[in-house]
Amino acid sequence: MASLGRHLLVEMWGCDSRIDDVDLVERAIDEAVMAIGATLVQSHVHRYSPQGVTGLAVLAESHLSLHSWPEYGYMAADVFTCGTLTIPRRAVAVFEEIFAPGRIEVREIERGVQVGDAAVPRATGSLVAHPTV
Amino acid sequence: MASLGRHLLVEMWGCDSRIDDVDLVERAIDEAVMAIGATLVQSHVHRYSPQGVTGLAVLAESHLSLHSWPEYGYMAADVFTCGTLTIPRRAVAVFEEIFAPGRIEVREIERGVQVGDAAVPRATGSLVAHPTV
Repeated sequence: MASLGRHLLVEMWGCDSRIDDVDLVERAIDEAVMAIGATLVQSHVHRYSPQGVTGLAVLAESHLSLHSWPEYGYMAADVFTCGTLTIPRRAVAVFEEIFAPGRIEVREIERGVQVGDAAVPRATGSLVAHPTV
Repeated sequence: MASLGRHLLVEMWGCDSRIDDVDLVERAIDEAVMAIGATLVQSHVHRYSPQGVTGLAVLAESHLSLHSWPEYGYMAADVFTCGTLTIPRRAVAVFEEIFAPGRIEVREIERGVQVGDAAVPRATGSLVAHPTV
């Protein structure tokens, strides 16, 4: 059963103030994108008041996101990639190294699973990343 | 069992060229954010070559994303919100109205589920959206 994308949902608990650091969130995005072999189109990091950071990155292969709740020591990450050229699980090691969570959980969800009539491609295409940005 | 966020993963099949229209993707983001009662911090829409659109929105309550594969008539949407003040399912009706998919599937996933030791808040906090942007 083919799918168009893989989506990792990462839960990190037991984090310290590093998840409230904009520079570290930016670094985590850059390093994760590189580690998984994706292409960064644009990223944006936002710090909330009084705390919490969101980082979102548009990838040629879909997106990557980080959201932190420092008051709970919790950070959520999403790594959504299409195609077969990336290795999204490598992002998890980057997050572990930078944010050192006490506990980390990863769920992988298939996106765009092709079943039934709706799965018929409407035109010739292949399950690769968008070929050019 | 409390959670910090709700994450809708929306699969839309049987879509036509509307999912390749940057203006419609922008409109869908704006209307969905309004419909769910969220606060938009920043959005970015990117069109790939030769086709496909990604829209990402930073929300005060987390994020919203849209990714289209026009060659498959498929669009993926994510609506990730924290707190209890938003109604993320209302975004689905907006996507249906704008993109008219032939088939739509919605999965809801709890994020930041508080179980075990890691669930103990590290400071006084409440399960509401970031209070200020």
